[in-house]
Amino acid sequence: MNNGYASLSGLETPAAIIDTVPMHRNIKRMQARMNALGVRFRPHVKTSKCSQVVQAQREAGACGITVSTLKEADHFFADGITDILYAVGVVSSKLPHVLRLRRRGCDLKIVTDSAEAARAIVDFGAEHGEAFEVWIEVDTDGHRSGIRPEAPALLEVATVLHQGGARLGGVMTHAGSSYDLYTPQALEAMAEQERAGCVRAAERLREAGFPCPVVSVGSTPTALSAKTLQGVTEVRAGVYVFFDLVMRGVGVCSTEDLALSVLTTVVGHQTEKGWAIVDAGWMAMSRDRGTQKQSHDFAYGQVCGLDGAVLPGYILSGANQEHGILSREGAPDPDIAKHFPLGTLLRILPNHACATGAQFPAYHALGPDGGITQWSRLHGW
Amino acid sequence: MNNGYASLSGLETPAAIIDTVPMHRNIKRMQARMNALGVRFRPHVKTSKCSQVVQAQREAGACGITVSTLKEADHFFADGITDILYAVGVVSSKLPHVLRLRRRGCDLKIVTDSAEAARAIVDFGAEHGEAFEVWIEVDTDGHRSGIRPEAPALLEVATVLHQGGARLGGVMTHAGSSYDLYTPQALEAMAEQERAGCVRAAERLREAGFPCPVVSVGSTPTALSAKTLQGVTEVRAGVYVFFDLVMRGVGVCSTEDLALSVLTTVVGHQTEKGWAIVDAGWMAMSRDRGTQKQSHDFAYGQVCGLDGAVLPGYILSGANQEHGILSREGAPDPDIAKHFPLGTLLRILPNHACATGAQFPAYHALGPDGGITQWSRLHGW
Repeated sequence: MNNGYASLSGLETPAAIIDTVPMHRNIKRMQARMNALGVRFRPHVKTSKCSQVVQAQREAGACGITVSTLKEADHFFADGITDILYAVGVVSSKLPHVLRLRRRGCDLKIVTDSAEAARAIVDFGAEHGEAFEVWIEVDTDGHRSGIRPEAPALLEVATVLHQGGARLGGVMTHAGSSYDLYTPQALEAMAEQERAGCVRAAERLREAGFPCPVVSVGSTPTALSAKTLQGVTEVRAGVYVFFDLVMRGVGVCSTEDLALSVLTTVVGHQTEKGWAIVDAGWMAMSRDRGTQKQSHDFAYGQVCGLDGAVLPGYILSGANQEHGILSREGAPDPDIAKHFPLGTLLRILPNHACATGAQFPAYHALGPDGGITQWSRLHGW
Repeated sequence: MNNGYASLSGLETPAAIIDTVPMHRNIKRMQARMNALGVRFRPHVKTSKCSQVVQAQREAGACGITVSTLKEADHFFADGITDILYAVGVVSSKLPHVLRLRRRGCDLKIVTDSAEAARAIVDFGAEHGEAFEVWIEVDTDGHRSGIRPEAPALLEVATVLHQGGARLGGVMTHAGSSYDLYTPQALEAMAEQERAGCVRAAERLREAGFPCPVVSVGSTPTALSAKTLQGVTEVRAGVYVFFDLVMRGVGVCSTEDLALSVLTTVVGHQTEKGWAIVDAGWMAMSRDRGTQKQSHDFAYGQVCGLDGAVLPGYILSGANQEHGILSREGAPDPDIAKHFPLGTLLRILPNHACATGAQFPAYHALGPDGGITQWSRLHGW
């Protein structure tokens, strides 16, 4: 990790630290992979919600962005980004907001997975003289939303959109089930399932005479595991920019790729129990327990020194709102107070970067020279 | 709950709704109880982090506040509150911040549970000519920080503080284990254990010739279960102001007392699975799964109609970042799309009000007449 870490000792804790060296490496790695596979890359900005991070993704070659809320669309449109996909099924009550953005020049695309929602979109569009660009959400792994590639509803939705005057922009899917896998074989198979399902949906639309220029797939694990992306035009992924313990457990990154950590201070001990108390509780780490279902459960996070080097065997085993309990896995450490004296600064690797980042109004970005810059982060809706 | 709820339908979702009718009732109930028990009440503002909520607590009779971060102290001191307890063990690196607040006129009290931390406080105080007021944290249930009432360390810490010129303000404890109980008998016993342990620590200090004016105890469950608070001078509690599913599971409130909910919209269905998809995912609800270890697990929350009435048997069974999965407990509901049509507005009761509130930059406070006011909320450190 970063060697110029001494500057961190001047920060009040807890603080969210982005190590920009691995962050830039992660960005370049993903973009190079997408370039090699011959597809455009549309990062999901829900992970960082941060202008500087997204700027780095764009400079590396990203085409457009994916957002999870309309507030993100507002923010990044204000940053000058026009090609935006809002990747959550839209409902009537959100269409005025979508319309406002489009009227101001944002090329905002929306998604749907039902004829009823599609009808609401075209009705609202007709009322306001707007041809919304709509992508149909495809379900390739059964984990959440979308229409199965072979389902009759696919053509029904396309018909409603096309006849209603909307612009049928394409199909999109997200194989979120990939987060529950952990072997290269299973990940490669899921990537192929995601690709094949989405391409099949596009083919059905085209065979029926509908336009379907975009075929958009993605999740960090599948994006990093796909052997071919034939028929796919673009990929979306979010958490790859920081990675986290869950992604390491899935097997798509190593410890040195983890770019987000929480800086914390040892504020007390319960020596008899082998506990050090730190000032990163669940308010800082989030309540995400994503490694709980993986082969190695890190509770609320894995403990590193200020230099970012893992201190093997130490985890954040418990968390109250502003208190974290640091202990050794297995037998308690009777020398916990000697190993972690009062005032010691540590960095905790989080289970889930999207959830941990969200707990902070700003990141502290640590540059290769040890310089620290504050990067603000969106919060709320 | 509140009848003037129609105004909620104008909000973009997800949104954090405070029903002010039960909120004010909760505040009055707790304050009346404390008055009857003859103790001062110092609410913990970490739950709401909101000026308007804390103002209501003060108007009802609260004396001072408890904070979990120095940012809360900054904020509420700016609101005109001077009597503030920072209830997390303080370390050297935070003393300059504490000093700044005290120099500006904030009567900020700090806590410690070790001779080493106490020495750092008095050394820093001597260096800057400041007599900090310090309370000694007592461990009455083994759940986190503090010194056992009978431990030799108690007198050692007092000696360091007293001889070093700090003002020994008293003792404080928090029986957080009470969250894991669920019978009135067990809660009453824990309240008595908390009281007796803290009073015993105070007696030991006084017997040794130290001043100990304050004896401060508290958690919401113990505050609502104590039969006597003899020897206690003040009580602290936080989550009682909103309550939540965990507190209802503990048995210290009823559904009609729950003052915080998340307003959400149905954005899709997976009819075959009996799922409705809503726009409150874990980003809105938080990842807190506090009811998981209780007898009734509500996953990510219990589902209510827009009027706040529980829809029995429906829970938020799963959550992605901006997608919640609403389903029926037990057998899937084949008529889920009929029961929860696209665009339906619902209110989800959270597991843990402190965690869910933290996901929002502001609350929407619903008054008895149905009027909605936006109340901003602190975020970060």
